[in-house]
Amino acid sequence: MPFKSLEDLRVACLDPPAGNEAAQATVARRQDTLTKPRGSLGRLEEITGWLARWQGRDMPRLERVKVIVFAGNHGVTAQGVSAFPSEVTVQMVANFANGGAAINQLARAAGAELDVIPLDLDRPTADFTQEPAMSEADFLAAVSAGYESVHENLDLVCFGEMGIGNTTPAAAIAAALFGGEVHGWTGRGTGVDDEGLKRKVAAIESGLKRHSAALADPLQIAASLGGRELAAILGATLAARHRGIPVLLDGFVCTAAVAPLARLHPQGLAHTLAAHVSAEAGHRRLLEALELKPLLDLGMRLGEGSGACLAVNLVRSALECHARMASFAEAGVSGG
Amino acid sequence: MPFKSLEDLRVACLDPPAGNEAAQATVARRQDTLTKPRGSLGRLEEITGWLARWQGRDMPRLERVKVIVFAGNHGVTAQGVSAFPSEVTVQMVANFANGGAAINQLARAAGAELDVIPLDLDRPTADFTQEPAMSEADFLAAVSAGYESVHENLDLVCFGEMGIGNTTPAAAIAAALFGGEVHGWTGRGTGVDDEGLKRKVAAIESGLKRHSAALADPLQIAASLGGRELAAILGATLAARHRGIPVLLDGFVCTAAVAPLARLHPQGLAHTLAAHVSAEAGHRRLLEALELKPLLDLGMRLGEGSGACLAVNLVRSALECHARMASFAEAGVSGG
Repeated sequence: MPFKSLEDLRVACLDPPAGNEAAQATVARRQDTLTKPRGSLGRLEEITGWLARWQGRDMPRLERVKVIVFAGNHGVTAQGVSAFPSEVTVQMVANFANGGAAINQLARAAGAELDVIPLDLDRPTADFTQEPAMSEADFLAAVSAGYESVHENLDLVCFGEMGIGNTTPAAAIAAALFGGEVHGWTGRGTGVDDEGLKRKVAAIESGLKRHSAALADPLQIAASLGGRELAAILGATLAARHRGIPVLLDGFVCTAAVAPLARLHPQGLAHTLAAHVSAEAGHRRLLEALELKPLLDLGMRLGEGSGACLAVNLVRSALECHARMASFAEAGVSGG
Repeated sequence: MPFKSLEDLRVACLDPPAGNEAAQATVARRQDTLTKPRGSLGRLEEITGWLARWQGRDMPRLERVKVIVFAGNHGVTAQGVSAFPSEVTVQMVANFANGGAAINQLARAAGAELDVIPLDLDRPTADFTQEPAMSEADFLAAVSAGYESVHENLDLVCFGEMGIGNTTPAAAIAAALFGGEVHGWTGRGTGVDDEGLKRKVAAIESGLKRHSAALADPLQIAASLGGRELAAILGATLAARHRGIPVLLDGFVCTAAVAPLARLHPQGLAHTLAAHVSAEAGHRRLLEALELKPLLDLGMRLGEGSGACLAVNLVRSALECHARMASFAEAGVSGG
């Protein structure tokens, strides 16, 4: 297990590698020679420079792309915060294994491998309105599982989650990290009704009150109010940074899961791009708080890594342009 | 030639087929059985219904996707409206043929065939500050070339353009169709400087004044102020409607080119989706005027069909989810 204490983990979070700025500059110089008006590929040019910096390669590659979906169950569902029953988490993990979920189709369409990692589904986290969601040991085990799921030979990775009830811990983490009224961070998740939404806000307010002593530390917030799949995404995103792998962030739950990294170090999420802004209330606000500008805004709110995976082909297209366009000189085009 | 007079063309524009609403409804019913919260794929669900309606198939397909780029030259470049010289149009057509342009890479990444159709590049349109850009015969020839470029066995089509100076006719058409101050429709194109931008606004204002008698008729606007590649895109978009092929619209020039179809009939562009909003000033405003909501907003301003082509993989992903996800019943997932 890579992290034996919160302090081990904190040390890794406080010292993120800076990436290869020279590789990013090499990409920018090449972009300006290609047969297009300067800057006219917009964010596609930014994407290629980002790949170069975080892969540490002058010419990035996208041979091996992976989507890793973490699944967890949540004791806070006892508060009536979700429209679906908790058994759906394990049913959906089976659906992933059988190839029937949205993420299976999206991963195939993106040319990405899909891994699914269930985390103690028969042992939900504790109800955070009553006690910390995870003990320190449970939290570190989940972070470590995420960390160890990311291997060095990947060129790009997307993290997804499945966990009935998990927009509740996500909203709780966001509120704890960034403050403001809880209802502004709280949405309908998979489709809870008005009464369910009220219960959700009340549960989060109760959790924030109960764990007020933990709220000064982003890692204690993640342990007290989060969930195993969120902790795993934090660990996996940290591993990607240390292993030279750019990350596409998915929706609200995923973004909340990694937000502690940004609170621990201002550059903690520099190797990530926000793939999309979801329709879940709170995601746009959270992206703004993190100064992340989403690539897509398509009203999706499914999780599973679906929005991140949908953006993989944008990244592929960006790299194809960069790698294979002719220069003005090569093509004999005037005015470059 | 399909259109021998403006009146022939007008008749086709005034009677657009309604598409297959039953196929769209079939898609919506299936969407609600699939293993995801209802509506949680956001605009991906809308895209699949749109494909079904305009292909006229209960289960849409994307076997044959094409990008057709039309190229033309513009007499109005005599007014100093572009940052690049006119010979770049023919140089870029050669670059397309050699596979070196952005659209070559984007088409390959989208699994789309690419056709390039140069339109009388050695015979630029007239300078519209002096006389109509095209005679009626020239305009109809260009519209007809576009119309005939679209074949019935396509499942989805993107139209692109290449033509040094062509954001000037595009802005002139938008201003003529929708009114308002010319500078609000006029941007920097490939990167004209402040003085060039002033010349561009002045040229458009001069053209609107000179052709004021034509401004009541969207087709006469397109002939007097447009260009051959814009006219071809209008004809090709009309052909797609009649041939059951959904269209992804590209940027400002492409959208301005087809805007007359919406002015001639309120449903004239119902078979199109705006693939992106470009960074060219005026595009966002034009999309709003047409009530088109773009799929992508990535600061691109290249033309060539690049933004449309980039959205093809979003459409593929949407269809993959729709066609291949398991239903709640098939997967044994609770709560569907």
